Amino acid sequence: MKNIKLTIEYDGRRYLGWQRLGNSDKTIQGKIESILSQMTGEKIEIIGSGRTDAGTHARGQVANFKTESDLSEVEMLSFLNRYLPNDIVIKAVEEVGERFHARYNAIGKQYSYYVWNDTIPTAFYRHHSFYVPQKLDLLEMEKAAEKLLGTHDFIGFSALKKTKKSTVRTIKEIRLEKEGSMLHFTFIGDGFLHKMIRILTGTLLEIGMGKLDMQVIEEVLVKKVRQDAGETVPASGLFLDQVFYE
Amino acid sequence: MKNIKLTIEYDGRRYLGWQRLGNSDKTIQGKIESILSQMTGEKIEIIGSGRTDAGTHARGQVANFKTESDLSEVEMLSFLNRYLPNDIVIKAVEEVGERFHARYNAIGKQYSYYVWNDTIPTAFYRHHSFYVPQKLDLLEMEKAAEKLLGTHDFIGFSALKKTKKSTVRTIKEIRLEKEGSMLHFTFIGDGFLHKMIRILTGTLLEIGMGKLDMQVIEEVLVKKVRQDAGETVPASGLFLDQVFYE
Repeated sequence: MKNIKLTIEYDGRRYLGWQRLGNSDKTIQGKIESILSQMTGEKIEIIGSGRTDAGTHARGQVANFKTESDLSEVEMLSFLNRYLPNDIVIKAVEEVGERFHARYNAIGKQYSYYVWNDTIPTAFYRHHSFYVPQKLDLLEMEKAAEKLLGTHDFIGFSALKKTKKSTVRTIKEIRLEKEGSMLHFTFIGDGFLHKMIRILTGTLLEIGMGKLDMQVIEEVLVKKVRQDAGETVPASGLFLDQVFYE
Repeated sequence: MKNIKLTIEYDGRRYLGWQRLGNSDKTIQGKIESILSQMTGEKIEIIGSGRTDAGTHARGQVANFKTESDLSEVEMLSFLNRYLPNDIVIKAVEEVGERFHARYNAIGKQYSYYVWNDTIPTAFYRHHSFYVPQKLDLLEMEKAAEKLLGTHDFIGFSALKKTKKSTVRTIKEIRLEKEGSMLHFTFIGDGFLHKMIRILTGTLLEIGMGKLDMQVIEEVLVKKVRQDAGETVPASGLFLDQVFYE
């Protein structure tokens, strides 16, 4: 039995997200499993590093699956990219140790969020960014971002209800870069809760607009009230860049 | 009577090209004229700097139109971007002298062509580039590009049949830049014939693959036989970047 690791890029626009829903063909996982099953003649289930929501994109999602197939890594790569829809691309196929598990072994993730920040909208990046015409105080946003670094209970910045699972996470880095009209947020951490990046970005944007004071960061971390944080920005601007393993 | 100059960005993917076709709604010109007519209550016709083919994109197409409207430039800009489809964006509205003519006064144009050149395809730039998995000899392509510079009869590199109009054009600059997997061609000249950029790019690519020898450039310039040049590459990779005026 081989254990195969996939590195996957996808344009999430046409999909209901990563996770297979019954027999729906409108999920990334469902599409990939269906081609893998054709390729191997086995019923393949893949394990993703984590879910991505409807409309979210990925440059480096990671998944693994077990197979008895004799095909080489190169043959698998070429079969997959030939038969997958054009908006899902396998960037790498790699045989890994039998104990590799894309979700349990992930030690960190990097996400990007893109904001088109200009009085004039964009014809090209509409499905890969969120349009914010308002002036933003980037310095204020950077200061607020620093307050998010480190280990905290981020439940107030998530779409989760109270849960028995830990909602403590560590954010190692948040970068804000402006290139032309595009504002690029980068988030690196050991893991992120459901909708956490989109709520963090929404909160930072409202701080940048002057709608929220940066004190809100500490308040939400302490009091854990979702309503005190900013809006959830759309999935269209969100990219899973990379999953880190040991 | 005011003369208004528009600078226009569009994602050409959904359209049959720039030029209005009867009452079809599937052209860029048709879409803009229809919103302008609503805005002014007049029947507006716009003059573009030139046509772009179905699927071709623009970052800086220029057009002008005459109107009796009292609206300010800022009001026009905001009305247009509010009611145009999201894949057509007006970047600037400017009142110009009554003699300004977007086509006759254009003294040059800049186009870009994008080639995704990697063994792994792209999930994101499929509609904004042409996928070439083969290895390319960029040095050879640059040498060939130099032979295109200057003033020549480019009819052999165009989709035109013999015509009474001059098919002599001057190419001032051709740049090739590779950033990651994306190969970016820039063409600057006083004007380009129908499909000329796509045939030039196709020819340079076939030289880069070793399918054509760079001698072909001089041959096609002298003998003017379209069939001797490379294939016409798809419109998806082509962008009208800028139109130059005095």
